[in-house]
Amino acid sequence: MAEKADLLFTNALVLAMDEAMNQFEVGALAIKGDTILAAGPEAELRKKFDAKEIVDCGGKVLMPGLVNAHTHVPMTLLRGLADDLRLDVWLMGYIMPVEREFVNPEFVRLGTSIGCAEFIRSGVTTFADMYYFESSVAEATAAAGLRAVCGQTIMRFPSPDAQSFEDSLAATRQFIEQWLNHPLIVPAVSPHAPYSCTEEILRASAALAAEFDVPLHTHIAETAFEVENARRDWGMPVVPYVKKQNLFDAKVLAAHCVHVDAGEINTLKHHGAGIAHNPSSNLKLASGAAPVAEMLNAGLNVGIGTDGPASNNDLDMFEEVRLAAFLSKFHTNDPTSLPAQTALLMATRLGAQALHIGQRTGSLEAGKRADLILVDINQVHNSPHFRRDPNSVYAQLVYATKATDVSDVMVNGKWVMRHHELLTLDESEMLAHAADLAKEIDSFLIARESSVLSKLIAIGGTTQEESFEIQVKVKVEDPKPILGALTKPGIKIIYNRHYREYDAYFKFKPQQGILRYREDEFLNERGEVDHVRYRLTLVGDPHEREFPSDVMLSRSRFLAPANQSLRFYREYFQPSEEIHIVKDRRRWLVRFKDTEFYVNLDRMDEPALGFFLELKTRTWSRRDAEHKSTLVLELAKFLGVSTQETEAREYVRIVEENK
Amino acid sequence: MAEKADLLFTNALVLAMDEAMNQFEVGALAIKGDTILAAGPEAELRKKFDAKEIVDCGGKVLMPGLVNAHTHVPMTLLRGLADDLRLDVWLMGYIMPVEREFVNPEFVRLGTSIGCAEFIRSGVTTFADMYYFESSVAEATAAAGLRAVCGQTIMRFPSPDAQSFEDSLAATRQFIEQWLNHPLIVPAVSPHAPYSCTEEILRASAALAAEFDVPLHTHIAETAFEVENARRDWGMPVVPYVKKQNLFDAKVLAAHCVHVDAGEINTLKHHGAGIAHNPSSNLKLASGAAPVAEMLNAGLNVGIGTDGPASNNDLDMFEEVRLAAFLSKFHTNDPTSLPAQTALLMATRLGAQALHIGQRTGSLEAGKRADLILVDINQVHNSPHFRRDPNSVYAQLVYATKATDVSDVMVNGKWVMRHHELLTLDESEMLAHAADLAKEIDSFLIARESSVLSKLIAIGGTTQEESFEIQVKVKVEDPKPILGALTKPGIKIIYNRHYREYDAYFKFKPQQGILRYREDEFLNERGEVDHVRYRLTLVGDPHEREFPSDVMLSRSRFLAPANQSLRFYREYFQPSEEIHIVKDRRRWLVRFKDTEFYVNLDRMDEPALGFFLELKTRTWSRRDAEHKSTLVLELAKFLGVSTQETEAREYVRIVEENK
Repeated sequence: MAEKADLLFTNALVLAMDEAMNQFEVGALAIKGDTILAAGPEAELRKKFDAKEIVDCGGKVLMPGLVNAHTHVPMTLLRGLADDLRLDVWLMGYIMPVEREFVNPEFVRLGTSIGCAEFIRSGVTTFADMYYFESSVAEATAAAGLRAVCGQTIMRFPSPDAQSFEDSLAATRQFIEQWLNHPLIVPAVSPHAPYSCTEEILRASAALAAEFDVPLHTHIAETAFEVENARRDWGMPVVPYVKKQNLFDAKVLAAHCVHVDAGEINTLKHHGAGIAHNPSSNLKLASGAAPVAEMLNAGLNVGIGTDGPASNNDLDMFEEVRLAAFLSKFHTNDPTSLPAQTALLMATRLGAQALHIGQRTGSLEAGKRADLILVDINQVHNSPHFRRDPNSVYAQLVYATKATDVSDVMVNGKWVMRHHELLTLDESEMLAHAADLAKEIDSFLIARESSVLSKLIAIGGTTQEESFEIQVKVKVEDPKPILGALTKPGIKIIYNRHYREYDAYFKFKPQQGILRYREDEFLNERGEVDHVRYRLTLVGDPHEREFPSDVMLSRSRFLAPANQSLRFYREYFQPSEEIHIVKDRRRWLVRFKDTEFYVNLDRMDEPALGFFLELKTRTWSRRDAEHKSTLVLELAKFLGVSTQETEAREYVRIVEENK
Repeated sequence: MAEKADLLFTNALVLAMDEAMNQFEVGALAIKGDTILAAGPEAELRKKFDAKEIVDCGGKVLMPGLVNAHTHVPMTLLRGLADDLRLDVWLMGYIMPVEREFVNPEFVRLGTSIGCAEFIRSGVTTFADMYYFESSVAEATAAAGLRAVCGQTIMRFPSPDAQSFEDSLAATRQFIEQWLNHPLIVPAVSPHAPYSCTEEILRASAALAAEFDVPLHTHIAETAFEVENARRDWGMPVVPYVKKQNLFDAKVLAAHCVHVDAGEINTLKHHGAGIAHNPSSNLKLASGAAPVAEMLNAGLNVGIGTDGPASNNDLDMFEEVRLAAFLSKFHTNDPTSLPAQTALLMATRLGAQALHIGQRTGSLEAGKRADLILVDINQVHNSPHFRRDPNSVYAQLVYATKATDVSDVMVNGKWVMRHHELLTLDESEMLAHAADLAKEIDSFLIARESSVLSKLIAIGGTTQEESFEIQVKVKVEDPKPILGALTKPGIKIIYNRHYREYDAYFKFKPQQGILRYREDEFLNERGEVDHVRYRLTLVGDPHEREFPSDVMLSRSRFLAPANQSLRFYREYFQPSEEIHIVKDRRRWLVRFKDTEFYVNLDRMDEPALGFFLELKTRTWSRRDAEHKSTLVLELAKFLGVSTQETEAREYVRIVEENK
């Protein structure tokens, strides 16, 4: 007697994407509830199953839904905010300031819903996300009916959803407990990247993920710069470093892996890590080409991701799969590298395995969830078809099919799109909200960041420095006791410098930060000029929190080498006002109570305002900031300086208000 | 009083892509007949023009139609025929055999019409083509209502539309005369590439193009291999070589230019050449990355092309523009390289200028033809929009827009698509024809080329050799007079070799060519084995023309170094029959009457069939072949050999029929 089924898909070219890479040319698929019963030849399945409903696929391709192995989906709302920029400028100059101002649970829900609409339209049924307020990502995704591994971001900097990593960790635990065992959502722990975390954060994240047996989704070795820094700071590349922090105690999904060597590939394989390859992002940001062929040869599960839509700028996995194939051929100088079948496998079964949910989705096999799509391969851009070679259909899907050829999408046994119509989301309403928000963001950026920064960017490479800095400044009558205190036990001088600094400050109307052109004369021990450095720095008004005694947590600044003359910059930036300051600066890098501080002893010569002492140190978490705000006051005391009357203003403000 | 116009487009975001890069946010465009009268703010144009008809663009982007700067459009019919192969295998193993069999004017018309449908749907209004039977390309394009520069191919090999380059040249002249001054079609001369032409062909092509002042469209420096060969054979890179052949007497459109140096870029610029950059093709075939940023900096008009749809595998210019931007960023390791605005400019105004029709199309400016498209940038994958930066709209079009977002297309003042509906072409009819043809091609390849070649390809790099060879073979009773004749004046020995050859021939059922495994023992002057070479050669049945006296023009063969044992190949290929031959071969490369010939003097040992003399030489045109077929008989006579009884069979046939 025939077995009962809920649905029987017929008249399809079924691509199972299973181990045997089964294709059924007049194929069928039977499902019951959320589960696949069988894929096979139509004639066979018609005999075997008694289905409540028959779905005639009209000769389309029936295949597993695509798996987007790495994205930051709420960033649909920042799509096209800024492009064609260097990563640091893009991130520090545009994305992070906007995120700090605008990202909240509502933003995340709206951005995720828009992303889900785009996913469904382009045949993605599963994605791996990493963002802030990840519980809102999970809610919106579940409401849209898609499957996702949702990673709550943890890092050492304050973020839109946490003032410190301790807050993030606690929130992540709560998030996991809330979503564990959901039919669509797999919660995950997402320490952002080794360089944006600390050893402590990595260890705690891995322990948390291992405790609940959930995936750990992070960025690994995305840029050459990151690996250089790892070698310099940790004496080893990125993968051994994270292994040392026990990261592989968890089921790791490692995004990018652009700059990993053969040894690191072995380590990743040994620990069963999944990889997310992001060709568009790696090309657009000039990060490099990941060794995809080597990773596949090593037996790693390598999936394909779009990365966030603010950098890509879309979530089109068909484009991404094609690019993965193209980039591997180009990179290996071998057109047979990463053939279409392999590329498509990465976007389905291997991707699901990379996300550590391969038992649930990624191929059309009995027992897996019914996550599937119908693709029309009879459009004019995708005709004719050759069937001499069984690989032809994969080549068609990879090299000629467009995301818009996906007509129907089912996730977990439920339709989310039929005949190009979305069933779970209202696009026009979401897009209207997004349009309003885009206008607000435009206004915010125009007011706060626009022309000076843009102009600074336009003239050359800027780098961001001192994102978060604890600093205290005090007027000093006599510097001698400080010089004496620096030689006492309890403080260790790492190095010292002596400069003469000529600063020109540009002010603008309307107010948009202050641009400083600085000439640093480096003086040798005899007080002679050894060499000179010219730098341009854009400083915004500090608007981060202040601690007791005017200890400040300062904001980002942008730094560029100044290759042109002061006259050039004056003409180029056209400031509304210009202020000049000359000072003598002695600077020490010291270690005090296991913490590094910069000690600046400044003598203001033009205008002649006497001596100031500045103490500065970097920080990355609220607890650390609080700790250091105490330490910095102790250091001041150690140096014999009273912090009863501190100076909260920058030098340019002091000079202005002194006029 | 208001000026008369036929059409006024209103309510559009007009991107003029003119020198000033004008954008009109609520913009309008007026046209009369085939010509643009003005682009500007809507309010202004409404006052200025009295239009017969108003077209409300609904807030869409109104921009110039895209220019595809290099393609082989009829190859839509070979799309997906074979993928993920090395260029030589793909071309010699699949494309060329199928082209020789199937390409005729009807094929070209159908393939072009399908390509035009794809072009229109994806917003391309102008393309530069290069193929066979180019007059049929022109006919189908004009019928579809698109603009094209149509280049008739000329090369030194027999092609589907010509037995020799003399035939091609004559046909090209006729083609130009027929299409000169057509409103949509610009005829062009297309010597295929320097390596596939001769100096004579290049010179004659340039002269012909200059005579009619039409463009000359060719391939330049596509692969590193091509440049290596140029340096070896001509002692210089490709651009100086073609300059030496006076190629730049014509208005050149140079496709690819992947491997050109700074000097060559200067030469191209000096001579006003246009460049067609083909990122998909260069990536997919692993050809390399063209120095696009350098070429643009040098002031060259660099357009973007899809290359042929058999290698791409589509004609999607939106994808191509995005890839151009991505590839330049990756290649220069600089994410600010080739920003979106520049990439889109390459696909419009610069592209038109590269095709030498910049006065006619490529931007929305008064006096140019009305070639334009409407693009919906409000889809979910392309929202929201930021307008802080005027470059945002270009970034949106380049990084997030899909070809399917193009809704309306006008060429030369006439609609060819309205609201996604094609007005000049019937897709379903064309696709039905293409499907039938694809079945025929599948059957042809299965029968003629399939498994042995595929298997040969699967086990390693094959190269094609001796595509066209004049050869004559004669049974010889006594070799001594030949040895004597070789020392006479009138013949010059360039080198000589002595081998002992052990051949194993594999035959297959059904018949699919013969695979030869050959062990060549190179013998020194004392008859001792110096070294050994193993090679695998797949030979089809000769089916090209025969000249008088059994002089043969032989067909392609595929050659691979044999790294495995004879046993391995026997098990791998599973031949239905195996034939063994051992012979002693003396080979001379000689110059006779200014022509190089190979002289093989063979003694058949197993089976013992006595001596044979083989004379061989390469050819590339019908006239040349006829000339050499006479020369080879003269050489036989010179060597004292009668050609009354020649032997047309290959050795393996002689042995088989001798059993």
